Amino acid sequence: MIYADNAATTKPSKAVIEAMLPYFEEVYGNPSSLHTPGQKAAEALQLAREKIAACLGASPKEITFTSGGSEADNQALRSAAYLGKRNGKTHILSTAFEHHAVLHTLKALEKEGFTVELLPVSPEGLVTAEQVETAIREDTCLVSVMFAQNEIGTIQPIGEIGEVCHRHGVLFHTDAVQAAGHIAIDVRDLNVDLLSLSAHKFHGPKGVGALYARSGIRLSSIIEGGAQERGKRAGTENLPAIVGMAKALEDATAHLEENAQKVTALRERLIEGLSKIPHSALNGDRYARVPGTVNFCFEGIEGESLLLLLDMAGIAASSGSACTSGSLDPSHVLLAIGRPHEVAHGSLRLSLSEENTDEDVDTILKEVPRVVEYLRSMSPVWKDLVAGKRKFIL
Amino acid sequence: MIYADNAATTKPSKAVIEAMLPYFEEVYGNPSSLHTPGQKAAEALQLAREKIAACLGASPKEITFTSGGSEADNQALRSAAYLGKRNGKTHILSTAFEHHAVLHTLKALEKEGFTVELLPVSPEGLVTAEQVETAIREDTCLVSVMFAQNEIGTIQPIGEIGEVCHRHGVLFHTDAVQAAGHIAIDVRDLNVDLLSLSAHKFHGPKGVGALYARSGIRLSSIIEGGAQERGKRAGTENLPAIVGMAKALEDATAHLEENAQKVTALRERLIEGLSKIPHSALNGDRYARVPGTVNFCFEGIEGESLLLLLDMAGIAASSGSACTSGSLDPSHVLLAIGRPHEVAHGSLRLSLSEENTDEDVDTILKEVPRVVEYLRSMSPVWKDLVAGKRKFIL
Repeated sequence: MIYADNAATTKPSKAVIEAMLPYFEEVYGNPSSLHTPGQKAAEALQLAREKIAACLGASPKEITFTSGGSEADNQALRSAAYLGKRNGKTHILSTAFEHHAVLHTLKALEKEGFTVELLPVSPEGLVTAEQVETAIREDTCLVSVMFAQNEIGTIQPIGEIGEVCHRHGVLFHTDAVQAAGHIAIDVRDLNVDLLSLSAHKFHGPKGVGALYARSGIRLSSIIEGGAQERGKRAGTENLPAIVGMAKALEDATAHLEENAQKVTALRERLIEGLSKIPHSALNGDRYARVPGTVNFCFEGIEGESLLLLLDMAGIAASSGSACTSGSLDPSHVLLAIGRPHEVAHGSLRLSLSEENTDEDVDTILKEVPRVVEYLRSMSPVWKDLVAGKRKFIL
Repeated sequence: MIYADNAATTKPSKAVIEAMLPYFEEVYGNPSSLHTPGQKAAEALQLAREKIAACLGASPKEITFTSGGSEADNQALRSAAYLGKRNGKTHILSTAFEHHAVLHTLKALEKEGFTVELLPVSPEGLVTAEQVETAIREDTCLVSVMFAQNEIGTIQPIGEIGEVCHRHGVLFHTDAVQAAGHIAIDVRDLNVDLLSLSAHKFHGPKGVGALYARSGIRLSSIIEGGAQERGKRAGTENLPAIVGMAKALEDATAHLEENAQKVTALRERLIEGLSKIPHSALNGDRYARVPGTVNFCFEGIEGESLLLLLDMAGIAASSGSACTSGSLDPSHVLLAIGRPHEVAHGSLRLSLSEENTDEDVDTILKEVPRVVEYLRSMSPVWKDLVAGKRKFIL
């Protein structure tokens, strides 16, 4: 099986699994316990916090461990919103193509009285700092713009947006779930106040993430209880997973350039090869994208059938976000960049990691055109398009 | 090291670690993905859900996976409270010695306009169904009583309380974090509507728990985002941990009687032995307790010093909950059962598992009296007590 769905989840590396095992087998104490087994666990927890902070250019005390990227997003947005409310600021600015962990939390905040404004995104899948600056109001308390788009892979100008936010005294959150471990992140350089990441997107374990919150920003708890994580996130710390996340982020950071170079080369071959399929289009900017993610629309076919046939051909891909794969609605991301419904349904996301090979790309470039052609040969819509009864969009 | 702090966390069993490993190494797909690696993960997720449901007498669709017991408690309480509010019912009944995951969530709900009433508990560390029945009001929407008390180990009459709640049409939640895997639980027999559990308290991994919610009870999300867990808990499922939890609960359930018998015998030796220490007292009822947990107060000493000296003697114990071990306040649980401050500070919790041995108990029964005697010899309070300048409480 060629695994080309690394934006959904990655395979934990051998080094990560090896790093975690002692924390299942030996150092299993509760980090809050005063005895030696507990204190050994507490030391490992602190070391992991230091390592993760170092990879982001943050201080250890600015890192809060969560159960994943979604929880980190939820906590970041609620924290900033509630801080804003205290100062009478209840306007939140975000974008139309955020992950649902952001969009659904914003919807919940709307019900609590906040005003949420979603910026449109360009056909290239980008927002600009100018858009943000124009939309910031007197009562804006928070701007949240994702770092790398999870479906189409485009990278937003986070540093420029951060600079605008800080100039206007507005807190800035970025969902960096698809960016962390793949592109360089320095929270100070980027003027980011809150940043979410998830370990399983960079060869770490599932079930663990981190929230960076700039020193001085008071987080609101979304899980109440014990005093873990300086009272901001209750529950016994998931130490094996936290250690695994630290190892994964360290490894990813150490090999960032090298991996990016390798994966970008594979991606470029994919984009060039798939672009040759007639009536297809790359989604998102040609270059401003994370190394591994490619998303195409193919006219006249249906994404789910494409996935199933590719799966039979030994290729694991997706049509967009795994989190919404049960849904029949077209991707809100593809609609946001202006793809019409009928085209948005025919999408394919291929997301590579450094474990993929040139041979994988060869196979994908052989199978995708074959499957697209086959599906089109069966498609009444395609027949209408060819017969001129419908107009081609792509 | 003798590990006698199993109420804080347990060592994951070899069988649990072995059960998890393939889900790190091989079946690493995202359970929401449509391709084969994703569907294999989805099947394992479903199987784990079925296993856990079977251990509790529940249906698989009644099980929601969470990041642990605290999250499950938070979600259970908020869900029941919000359901109540819709019907104009905003009174919540609980007890004075719940875990902080319950008490702090109730405090947050109070700020949202709910009325919270905490029932007093008896000197034996028990609440009764009569107390609950007397306190239920017309506008009571939820009763939450923990199954087994985490510091002193006493078991509450959950079935009787459940019967009362159902007779009055009130939702009933129990925090079963210290009960699950240690005593038999059948949610139908017990008339429980909502039940929280945490894997790492029964030799499963940290960072994963489950919330049982009776069919028909609409859960509120506390983590918004993707449609995982039927839309009630966003975030990529932590499959390795979920599989590990299922294995741990299956194993615990299969050996429940046998483990309980073994651990109870060890516990009884502990209680008999420690009771011989002068001016000491067992906290909580002598018999209505989980197999492994023993909690004593020793007059004239300070719990933290006791723990540190026991640690030096190779015994890992605690003074109460690990979640509050950073705090200087005496345990709210010991205060709730009527221990005065000065005595509550001198507490020791020993919590055993089936991995403990008779030799462990021999060592504990040798070391605890020695350390208590030593600390008393250094204690000004003890000198005053012996000199008759203060009155003995115990």
